[in-house]
Amino acid sequence: MRGAVLHGPGDVRVEERADARIVLPTDAVIRLSATCVCGSDLWPYRGIEAVSGPSPMGHEYVGVVQEVGSEVRNVKPGQFVVGSFFASDNTCPICRAGYQSSCVEREPVGGLGAQAEYLRVPLADGTLVATPELPPDDLVPDLLAASDVLGTGWFGAVAAQVGPGKTVAVVGDGAVGLLAVLAARHFGAERIIAVSRHEPRQKLAAHYGATHIVTERGDEGVARIKDLTDGLGAHSVIEAVGTQESMMQAIRSTRAGGHVGYVGVAHGVELPGEELFFSHVHLHGGPAPVRRFLPELIDLICRREIDPGRVFDLALPLEQAAEGYRAMDERRAIKVLLNP
Amino acid sequence: MRGAVLHGPGDVRVEERADARIVLPTDAVIRLSATCVCGSDLWPYRGIEAVSGPSPMGHEYVGVVQEVGSEVRNVKPGQFVVGSFFASDNTCPICRAGYQSSCVEREPVGGLGAQAEYLRVPLADGTLVATPELPPDDLVPDLLAASDVLGTGWFGAVAAQVGPGKTVAVVGDGAVGLLAVLAARHFGAERIIAVSRHEPRQKLAAHYGATHIVTERGDEGVARIKDLTDGLGAHSVIEAVGTQESMMQAIRSTRAGGHVGYVGVAHGVELPGEELFFSHVHLHGGPAPVRRFLPELIDLICRREIDPGRVFDLALPLEQAAEGYRAMDERRAIKVLLNP
Repeated sequence: MRGAVLHGPGDVRVEERADARIVLPTDAVIRLSATCVCGSDLWPYRGIEAVSGPSPMGHEYVGVVQEVGSEVRNVKPGQFVVGSFFASDNTCPICRAGYQSSCVEREPVGGLGAQAEYLRVPLADGTLVATPELPPDDLVPDLLAASDVLGTGWFGAVAAQVGPGKTVAVVGDGAVGLLAVLAARHFGAERIIAVSRHEPRQKLAAHYGATHIVTERGDEGVARIKDLTDGLGAHSVIEAVGTQESMMQAIRSTRAGGHVGYVGVAHGVELPGEELFFSHVHLHGGPAPVRRFLPELIDLICRREIDPGRVFDLALPLEQAAEGYRAMDERRAIKVLLNP
Repeated sequence: MRGAVLHGPGDVRVEERADARIVLPTDAVIRLSATCVCGSDLWPYRGIEAVSGPSPMGHEYVGVVQEVGSEVRNVKPGQFVVGSFFASDNTCPICRAGYQSSCVEREPVGGLGAQAEYLRVPLADGTLVATPELPPDDLVPDLLAASDVLGTGWFGAVAAQVGPGKTVAVVGDGAVGLLAVLAARHFGAERIIAVSRHEPRQKLAAHYGATHIVTERGDEGVARIKDLTDGLGAHSVIEAVGTQESMMQAIRSTRAGGHVGYVGVAHGVELPGEELFFSHVHLHGGPAPVRRFLPELIDLICRREIDPGRVFDLALPLEQAAEGYRAMDERRAIKVLLNP
């Protein structure tokens, strides 16, 4: 089968890979309807995260079940399914508490390479959620967004305890940040401040429900958010970048007693304990337990109540994955969908 | 009036200070019934926190109102009152959200010096809570504990979302940690693991409701707590020390999706962002908004349902404050009560 492989910084190639097949009786193999490039794929692409040898890429996927292992009960061949970037059994105490991305049996899907024609999904019963029926083609990008970026933005909003009457700020205007805006509106936020300096992203943020745009970063951005909140800071701040600057901007933009939901994968971040102590904020985040939200997200998408697929502003054939990486690296595209 | 003053590391003297008096119309002056030495007083006493010149000490207090300013409405002379270490207006949006120790008008009481015969309390209406009647002498230590260490341990348990059916660990066996055990039992925790290597403190922890004692610190302590929790970690962990080691022990002892409540004043702590991200814990804490809890704590004490005053294992006349500091510094006493 064909699949994208990272050979070194800036060097993504679509080439022949071994066919995905059932290895364990709890596996499923799906034929991908669509896949995509994630902001987190850019860390190794840019050489910031080391890779040891050629690495199959991709961890976002939707598709049709081709084959299931002998112990799989919840999905069957022919169904359209959505999964996420950690396979999980969905039965352990951590999963039952809603933290499937820390499942005691979890397996990263990234290593299996979802930017391909087919994908082996471990722990299929716990990991995959089927749509009620085969979705029309125009909903496929929305369902693909649910696989990671929508579920991650959603978790950011849940972790930040977004709710009616609250002022919410979102730090980061990538696909996750934009979909955190969508989630904040869904949860009834009164005001949603998007931090963005890129006009096309500001427009999409406004489409998703942002009521205010702040273009400043760092302490200037903090000051602007305080200006908008009687000097107190926002009730809820969603961090969707993962750098020292963005984390500190998020913490400092939050009022005492407020909530920071952080979902940008932290790189080189060190939080000063004393400042955090006196900030009085709640801090929660991490790799989003997307599985927790998938049934609700699929339902909202199938009823066309949300349109997260608009974050895909470039679609390419899988064979042109290298161009997709370039477009995201150069910020020419928010998020690139790949058609196998 | 007489009061304790820190002149330099290890040098506490009880000497004549200017009388406490009404400065602002929102002030009250109270005659102290009892005061005490706090673990946080040891930071400047040990020279770890710098002081600029002679500093009046103490921020824990109960006593009888002597005089009130012209705008004070909620307390009156003759009442027995309890306050906490930050004066707060109790009306601003931050106070109304329950974070009185981050009140927009807050004033630290520490600078006013509560280890004395009299104390000026700013923002008296927002800060002080009167008991229903003058308490009997034997309840005074319990009420004094409510002023800081009980309220702080209580906040730790609330921040760690302690509740029925949960396994709770408490890192730190000072007065705050021990009273966090008391709070955890009050909130219905199923198992309470106290981290302590000091036998008298272990006994008091058991009296307050600890079901397990762990003597190991750092990663060994983490391993012991994981052993007790099917390898998952505790649901709720209360951190009551404030060092890098204790914070990391608390975070690593918490299961994914669990809650760390941290109330030890952070000194030199840097939290590694990536580890925190993948830990999936909730983190909340800071200077305890004791005012939020005072009405409930006073009620529980007056009905003799809790006995937090047992943390005072040494009582001295105010004039012997220096010996009180020495006893706590050398860990000969858990907490020292001073009688003015």
